[in-house]
Amino acid sequence: MKEKFPQASYITMNELVLPNDTNTLNNLMGGRLLHWMDIAAAISAQKHCNNIVVTASVDNVSFQHPIKLGDVVTIHAKVTRAFNTSVEVRLDVWAENIPSGHRVKSNEAYYTFVAVGEGSKTIPVPALIPQTDQEKELFDGALRRRQLRLILGGKMKPDDATELKALFTAAKQ
Amino acid sequence: MKEKFPQASYITMNELVLPNDTNTLNNLMGGRLLHWMDIAAAISAQKHCNNIVVTASVDNVSFQHPIKLGDVVTIHAKVTRAFNTSVEVRLDVWAENIPSGHRVKSNEAYYTFVAVGEGSKTIPVPALIPQTDQEKELFDGALRRRQLRLILGGKMKPDDATELKALFTAAKQ
Amino acid sequence: MKEKFPQASYITMNELVLPNDTNTLNNLMGGRLLHWMDIAAAISAQKHCNNIVVTASVDNVSFQHPIKLGDVVTIHAKVTRAFNTSVEVRLDVWAENIPSGHRVKSNEAYYTFVAVGEGSKTIPVPALIPQTDQEKELFDGALRRRQLRLILGGKMKPDDATELKALFTAAKQ
Amino acid sequence: MKEKFPQASYITMNELVLPNDTNTLNNLMGGRLLHWMDIAAAISAQKHCNNIVVTASVDNVSFQHPIKLGDVVTIHAKVTRAFNTSVEVRLDVWAENIPSGHRVKSNEAYYTFVAVGEGSKTIPVPALIPQTDQEKELFDGALRRRQLRLILGGKMKPDDATELKALFTAAKQ
Amino acid sequence: MKEKFPQASYITMNELVLPNDTNTLNNLMGGRLLHWMDIAAAISAQKHCNNIVVTASVDNVSFQHPIKLGDVVTIHAKVTRAFNTSVEVRLDVWAENIPSGHRVKSNEAYYTFVAVGEGSKTIPVPALIPQTDQEKELFDGALRRRQLRLILGGKMKPDDATELKALFTAAKQ
Amino acid sequence: MKEKFPQASYITMNELVLPNDTNTLNNLMGGRLLHWMDIAAAISAQKHCNNIVVTASVDNVSFQHPIKLGDVVTIHAKVTRAFNTSVEVRLDVWAENIPSGHRVKSNEAYYTFVAVGEGSKTIPVPALIPQTDQEKELFDGALRRRQLRLILGGKMKPDDATELKALFTAAKQ
Repeated sequence: MKEKFPQASYITMNELVLPNDTNTLNNLMGGRLLHWMDIAAAISAQKHCNNIVVTASVDNVSFQHPIKLGDVVTIHAKVTRAFNTSVEVRLDVWAENIPSGHRVKSNEAYYTFVAVGEGSKTIPVPALIPQTDQEKELFDGALRRRQLRLILGGKMKPDDATELKALFTAAKQ
Repeated sequence: MKEKFPQASYITMNELVLPNDTNTLNNLMGGRLLHWMDIAAAISAQKHCNNIVVTASVDNVSFQHPIKLGDVVTIHAKVTRAFNTSVEVRLDVWAENIPSGHRVKSNEAYYTFVAVGEGSKTIPVPALIPQTDQEKELFDGALRRRQLRLILGGKMKPDDATELKALFTAAKQ
Repeated sequence: MKEKFPQASYITMNELVLPNDTNTLNNLMGGRLLHWMDIAAAISAQKHCNNIVVTASVDNVSFQHPIKLGDVVTIHAKVTRAFNTSVEVRLDVWAENIPSGHRVKSNEAYYTFVAVGEGSKTIPVPALIPQTDQEKELFDGALRRRQLRLILGGKMKPDDATELKALFTAAKQ
Repeated sequence: MKEKFPQASYITMNELVLPNDTNTLNNLMGGRLLHWMDIAAAISAQKHCNNIVVTASVDNVSFQHPIKLGDVVTIHAKVTRAFNTSVEVRLDVWAENIPSGHRVKSNEAYYTFVAVGEGSKTIPVPALIPQTDQEKELFDGALRRRQLRLILGGKMKPDDATELKALFTAAKQ
Repeated sequence: MKEKFPQASYITMNELVLPNDTNTLNNLMGGRLLHWMDIAAAISAQKHCNNIVVTASVDNVSFQHPIKLGDVVTIHAKVTRAFNTSVEVRLDVWAENIPSGHRVKSNEAYYTFVAVGEGSKTIPVPALIPQTDQEKELFDGALRRRQLRLILGGKMKPDDATELKALFTAAKQ
Repeated sequence: MKEKFPQASYITMNELVLPNDTNTLNNLMGGRLLHWMDIAAAISAQKHCNNIVVTASVDNVSFQHPIKLGDVVTIHAKVTRAFNTSVEVRLDVWAENIPSGHRVKSNEAYYTFVAVGEGSKTIPVPALIPQTDQEKELFDGALRRRQLRLILGGKMKPDDATELKALFTAAKQ
C-alpha cells in the first residue's frame, strides 16, 4: 500500500443554512453542523483510504459564534495522520454572511474513521507523510489526541498516556 | 430562581433508522446520530432552564457498534449540573433491533448548552440539586469535564485544572 | 408464543417542531403529526410483536389545539389489545412550549398494525394481558373500535356489530 | 359569499415513493401517506375557501395493499360539503407500478379543515352545491360522517345522531 | 410495440412551497423547482414508455416570477414526441396564491428521458401519435429542439441542423 | 462599485449521494443534481455580487453518465461574466466513486442569477474582469449564450442575435 500526502485528502464543502437547519432563534443548530462535518470528514477519509469508512469518534467540539439562516458554511477537511486501520481528520469550519461580507471561524474539530472491508472487518490504510510544517504539527498532535480519546473511552489508563501526560507534568513544575 | 432536580429534565427520544440516515453499508451515519443527540439534549436543557438554549459544546463521542437500517435508536437525556448560564446534559444512547431483540448500548455523551434571552444574551439558569448517588457522581464529574473542555478550547491552562490534574498526578505516583 | 403485558410496548417519542413541519401560520401540519404518530405506534407494535409490522388502519383523529413552531411534541404509545395477527396501539400526544411552560393534550388516537413475515404473509402475535384498570378498559373498548373499523371498511354489517350496537340501542330506549 | 361547485376544489397530486418513505420491507409507510393526503386535502380545501385552512380531523383510514418503493401514488381530492366554518374533503388514492402497469385503489378517506383568519379565528366559508349524482351522494353522507366524528370526539351523544342512528335501527329490524 | 397518444402520459403534480424550499427572501429556489419538474416529467415519461426512465437532458428554463412560501405549484407534464429510445416531455408550471386567487404561469420547459432496461442498456420506446393541433405543433418543434440539444452538447455541427438553421436563414433574408 | 476577478467567486461543493437522491436503479436523479448545482451557483453568484441573488435561468444541461448511490459529487462554480444586474455562472460537475477511484466529468452548465435588493428590485452588480485565457474565452462566450437565452425566452428575434448568428452563417458557406 502506497503512502499518501495530506493534500490528497483535502476537500471543501459549502452548505447554505436553510430554515430546517435552524432553531427558533434562526441560528444553525449544533447537531446539524456536526452532521455536515461528519459527511465532509468521511469524504476526506475515504479519499485517503480509497475505501468505505465509518465514523469511530468525534473529539470535543465547541460552538462559539451563532451561525444565521442564509449564511454559507464552508468546511475544509484533511487527514492529519493514519494509524493501522484508522485515520484522524482535521476540520476547519467557517461561516459567512456573503451580502455583508462578515466571515468568522466557527470551529476546529477532529473526527476519526475506521476503514472497513468485507463483512465489516477493519482493514489497513495507507500511511500518511506530512509535508508542510503545519501538517507535521498536526501529525505530531494526533498521537496526543488519540491517547486522550482512549482514556476518555476507558481503553487506556492515564498513566500509560505518555504523550498526554507531558502536558500536565510540564505544567506541574 | 428555584432550584431543580435532575428528574425534571429527563426525556426519552426514539428514532427509527431510515435509508437516508445510513451509509452504503446500511449503517447509521455518525453525524446523523450526533444530530439526534443534539435535539434530545436541547429539549432536556430547555426543560431545566425553561428557556431557549443553544449548543455550546459536545464532548468526545465514540461509536463502537454499527447501528443498522430499521433499528430503533433510544436516547435518554438528563441535566447533570447547572453552571451560571449553562448546563451539562448527559446522554445514554441505545440501539435495538426489535424483531431479533438484540439491544446494545451505543454511546454515552455530554453536551453543554447556554441559555439565551433577548438579543441573544446569556441569562442565568436554575441551580441543579442531585438526588440519587448516580446523579451526585455525575454532578461531581461535571466540574472535571468542564475543565477539560476549557483546556481543549484553549481557555484554561492545564496547570489551573485542579480537578482534572488529580487524574494524572494520582496516576503518576 | 408467550403472552405479554402492555408495559412491554410502552414507548415515548419527543419531536421538536421545525419550520418544514409547519404551515404559513407557523402551526404544525396535521399530516406531519399523523406521520410521527405512525412511527411511534409502529415502534410500540414492534415491541409487542417482536416482528416487522405494517400499518393497517388509523382511527378518527381530531386536532383541537394548534401546535406552534419550536414546541416539543411528546407521543406516548402502548398496545391495548392483540388480535390474531394484529394489534391496536393507543397514542396520547402532548404539545409543550417549554420556555413558557404551556402544555396541552393535543390528541388521543388508535392505530392498528399487522405483523408480517416471509413473503409479506401475516403471522400470529402474542396475546396481551391487561394489568391496570385503565389497561383493562382500553382492552375492552378495543373490540368496539374494531367493529367500527370493520363497518367503516365495509367488512362487517352494522347488525353484526354486537358490541357497537349496544351504544345505539341503549341510547334508543 | 358566493356558492361554489365541487369541481372548483378538485385537485390531483402525484408522488414518487422514495427510499425514505418506506419501511424495511420497501413498502410506503402509512404515516407518510397520511402526510401526503393531508397536503393534497389542504390544497383542495384552500381552493374552496380561498383562505388559509387548518386540519380539524381525519376519519378512519385503512391500508389494504402494500405500496412499493418506486411506485407512483396519485391522490385525487375534492370538497364534498361545506359547513359554517369548515369543509369535508374526500380523497381517492391510487398506487401504480408504471413499468408493469399494475394499478390498485389504495384508500378512500375524509379529512376536514377549518378556515382561519386574523388571530387564528375561524371564519365562514362558501356553501357547496353538489352537481353530479356522485357529488350529491357524498354531500348527503357528509352529515352522517360529521355526526360520527362528533360522537367519537365526545361532542355529541349517540342518541342525538339522527342520521347515524338510522344505520343501526334499520339494521335492527 | 403499440403506438400511444400524448394524453396517455398527461399528469398533474401539485406541491406546496414549504420553508426549506425557499431562500432568505421567502421565494421558491429555482433548483427546488427544477427538482419537482424532473419528478413530474419522469412520471410522465414512464407512463409513455411503461419502463424505467432516466433524465437525459433539460432544456433552457427561465424563472420570471418569484414564487412565494405557501404558494401551490402546479406542474402539467405530457410527452411531445418519442424518438428511438427517448422521449421529450413538455412541462407547464403554474404558481398560485390560493387565498388571494393570484395565479401566474411560471415556466414552460422540456426535459428528455431515456428508457433503460437490464444492465442499464437503452431500449426502444413506443412511437407517439399527436392528435390535437397543439400536440402536432409540439411534435414538430421537438425535432428542432433536439438539434439544438445536439449542437449544444457538441454532438452535431450547426451546418447539419437543417431544422434549426431554417430559423436563422429565414431571419437572414 | 469595484470590479472583481473570477477567482473571487470560485467555490467548490461536495455532496454524498444518499438513498433519497436516487431512483430505483440507484442512480442520482437528474433533478436532485440540478438542485445542488443551483445552490452551488447561487453561492458563487452571491460572492461576486455581495448581495442576495435569485435564479434567473438555467441553460441546457445534459446527463451522460449515471452517478451511483454512495458516489461523491463535486461541483465547481465560478462567475464568467457580469451584465448590468445579473451574472452568468459556469458549473463543472464531477462524480467519483472513491473506493474504486473511478471519476468522470458529469456535466458542464450555465446558470444565471439576478441581484435583488429592497422590495425585490434588481440592483447593479460589479463588473467582472477575466484574467486567464480560459476565463476570457468563457467571458466572450457569455454574450452568445445570453442571446440564445433571449431567443429561447421569446425576448429577442433570431435576426438580432449577431453573436449567435455567426455560428450558423459561418457554417452556411
